[in-house]
Parts: sequence; structure tokens; C-alpha cells
Amino acid sequence: MSRRIRIIVEYDGTEYVGWQTQLNGIAVQEVIEHALEKVTGERIILHGSGRTDSGVHARAQVSHFDTDARMSADKFAFALNTMLPNDIRILYSEETNKEFHARFSAKRKEYCYTLQPGPHARVFTSRTALHVHLHPDIDRMNLAASYVLGKHDFAAFMSAGSKLSTTVRTIYRSEWVQENGLIRYYVSGNGFLYNMVRILVGTMLLVGSGKLDPETVKHALSTKNRTDAGDTAPAHGLCLNRVIYDDFDTEEILQRL
Amino acid sequence: MSRRIRIIVEYDGTEYVGWQTQLNGIAVQEVIEHALEKVTGERIILHGSGRTDSGVHARAQVSHFDTDARMSADKFAFALNTMLPNDIRILYSEETNKEFHARFSAKRKEYCYTLQPGPHARVFTSRTALHVHLHPDIDRMNLAASYVLGKHDFAAFMSAGSKLSTTVRTIYRSEWVQENGLIRYYVSGNGFLYNMVRILVGTMLLVGSGKLDPETVKHALSTKNRTDAGDTAPAHGLCLNRVIYDDFDTEEILQRL
Repeated sequence: MSRRIRIIVEYDGTEYVGWQTQLNGIAVQEVIEHALEKVTGERIILHGSGRTDSGVHARAQVSHFDTDARMSADKFAFALNTMLPNDIRILYSEETNKEFHARFSAKRKEYCYTLQPGPHARVFTSRTALHVHLHPDIDRMNLAASYVLGKHDFAAFMSAGSKLSTTVRTIYRSEWVQENGLIRYYVSGNGFLYNMVRILVGTMLLVGSGKLDPETVKHALSTKNRTDAGDTAPAHGLCLNRVIYDDFDTEEILQRL
Repeated sequence: MSRRIRIIVEYDGTEYVGWQTQLNGIAVQEVIEHALEKVTGERIILHGSGRTDSGVHARAQVSHFDTDARMSADKFAFALNTMLPNDIRILYSEETNKEFHARFSAKRKEYCYTLQPGPHARVFTSRTALHVHLHPDIDRMNLAASYVLGKHDFAAFMSAGSKLSTTVRTIYRSEWVQENGLIRYYVSGNGFLYNMVRILVGTMLLVGSGKLDPETVKHALSTKNRTDAGDTAPAHGLCLNRVIYDDFDTEEILQRL
């Protein structure tokens, strides 16, 4: 009788092609699957809450897997971490019911995009923040950010080539915050289109530097035209920050660690 | 007529044998000297405020050099950064008088040692913080830390093999602080012996876990015996945080950036 285990995964995405296994490089998923095989002796498939792109980080990715291994559920994190490189950590593991699915049960996800403003790129944030020479106008960016709150068709904020039944998503939080010399955009929603956060950020960066009006965001939402939005911001500033389920909130768990 | 330039250097020491050029690997100093040669066409010797050990980081190392290059002094930082790897940045450059010496003019230095407590080593602090499984008793560590304040003979807190005229140093700040889930030891003084901060931290970690009494620090100061102090804490938790001169305080400059 196999059990279903869910885990919270933290990773620095710099060295990986993203969460999901790809042909063109090493993915976080397969590194953990290899570690799981060493720990359990089983070939196990991991299911993540969603893909993250090449170079994108996660503070709290959620994943589940089924196993016959007779190990106390909370010990999987410790056992896996002895096998994993320093840039991937399992922060938490617990047993869950078979109805739980990391992707399909997810109710809300939060991403964070970090800017490091200043004359020089700083060393200790070079992997996780986008360096910008000039200090952007946060008030303007927050006005632009406010337009994405609520239920909208985000077709203009999706990279070409995606095929989806709907491009409507609901956004619960969308704000720029200053933290310890960094500028962070927090956005949470019931789901995100391909490159959606990075295109939102790329657009708002042009708003922050005065090259676009805040209303550009509102306009692109109404035209649904990708060319009305800005560029896709680089991957390394983006981090999957939190995933919320009916019975599981990664932030609550991390606060207790 | 050559000019003297002083710079503030930030580096992630993970990949280097320390600040000062060594035979056994690449040092931060020589990487910057190579960049300086490309920028100025001159073979230039850098003088740092002091060595940092292999693997130790700097948020604000100070260094000076003399050059005939006709470049506005503040531009050296920008020019050098185009040549440097991501883990070394020049945060500031300015002209100074010929009496200024990065090492001999330094009045006060501050180091910071960072602990990351919790069941699992976290990804984004793995290069710059020592992971400790159990949360140490900060009150006990702060009592131990208070004993090093003032003027003392730190012979017990120095690695063997050093030859010095005096092992007396004056400490102005010595405290443990909790910051964003991390625990940091800040220590500033008029100078530090070889491995002094790391031995202080190694001793106080044993105090924090209850294996040694806080008075161990007081006792070791009085016996001046290395064996009365604790182990040398690992290099990667240590960071040169600030250097103060009569006319120059790195923290004031960094706050303005």
C-alpha cells in the first residue's frame, strides 16, 4: 500500500534548465528523482505545482510523489538532503492523502521578482536579483501593478506558442515593496500563463523608468495584444515564493521551521 | 604625477584563496590587479586593509593603489566592474591623498559572522552562513560576547604560528543579533589576530549549545592559552563588514549608494 508524500523544495535555479525535465540540460525535478531513487530504491516520478523556467528560483516549490518506502514521512527531507547539491534543499516532507495533487490541487501561487537598484551590481544578490542602474519610480509601478488585480484576460502577457483553453486568471496581490535596499514585486494569483510574471515585470520596468505610462498595463489587458506589453524580464530575478492549497500553505510551514 | 585611488571591494570569497595573492589558488587581489592592468595598461599593486582567509567574504574591503591613468577617479569602479567576474565588485572609487594607506591608516574594522539555524541548510544562504541544526541560546552567547569588549590580550584566540609584537587588541562592539531568521555576530575592533573572529565564534557556539559556560571566554582571556578556547568556526560564515578611517567610513558610503 503506497503512500503519497508532499514536499517543499527550495532551489537556486541558476544551474538548471528549470523545474521540469528537459532534453537540453539538467532540471531540478530529475536531480530530486535521482536522490529519491537512492533513498527508496524505487523509480519515482515527481509532480510539481508547476514548471519554473530555466534560471528561475524557488523559495517554496511544492511537489508530491508516491512511494512504498517505509520511512517516517518527515524523514524524507533529511534523507534526500544528504544526496542533494547545495542549491537544492527539501525544506519539509509529510504524508498527504491520495486526492492531493501538487499541480491540480493548488489554489494560489505567489511569485516574487527582485530588483537591485544602484550604480553597481552587488555580489550577494547577483544570482537572484536583476540589477538596474537607476532607481525606478515605485509609485508609478504600483499604479501599473494595481491594474492587474482581479479577474482579467492576460493574453497580452503570455509568450507566443502557448496553447490554452483560457487565458483568464485572477490576481489577488500585485505590489512593489522596498526591502533592505532591494525592490520586490509580489504577485499572487490562481494561476499564471507562460512568462506572465516576467512580461508584467518587463512592462512595469518601462513604467518605472518613465518610458511607458502606467495605463499601458490597463491598455494591454483590454487589447489582449502581446505587442502592447513590454519585454520579458530576465529569469534570474524571479522566484516562486509560495503555494497555497486548501489544507497546506507553504508560508505557514516555513515560518515554523 | 601619479594619483592614489581608494576603492571599496565586495566579494563572495567561495571561489578564492582569500584576499591576498597566494601560490595555491586565485586570490581576489590578483583578479582585481589583472582588471586594473587591462583598464590602465599599468602593472599595479593593490594594498588591502588586511587579508581575509580562503572562503571568507567581504561586504566592504578597502584597498588603495597608485596610477598615472587619466581617468576620473569615480570611473575606476565602473571600468573595473566591466572586467571582473560577478563575485567581485568595486562598489566605489575616489582619489585620496598619498598619506592614506588602506592597511596602516585603518582605525577600526567590523566583521560579521552569520549562522543559519534550522532543520535544513537553506539554499540562498549556503555560501555565506554556517548552518546549525539547533537554535543556540543567544542570551548565553551575548553574555560570552560581552567579555571581549574593551582592551584584552587575545593570545588564546589566535591560531598557532603567528608572530606578532603584541596580541593586545581593543574591541568596541561584540554582540549577537537575530535578523530575518539568521543569527549574526557583529564584532568591531582596532585590529584582529589570525583567525581571532572564527575562534571567538567557535567558542561561543559551544556556549550557545550549552557545552561550555559563557565564562569560558573570560577564562581563556586570562590564561592566554589557545586550548582554553573553542574550535575555529568555518570560513564561509565570516564577512568583512566595514572598515573605518579618520576620513572614510565604508558604511557611510554604502548607505548612499
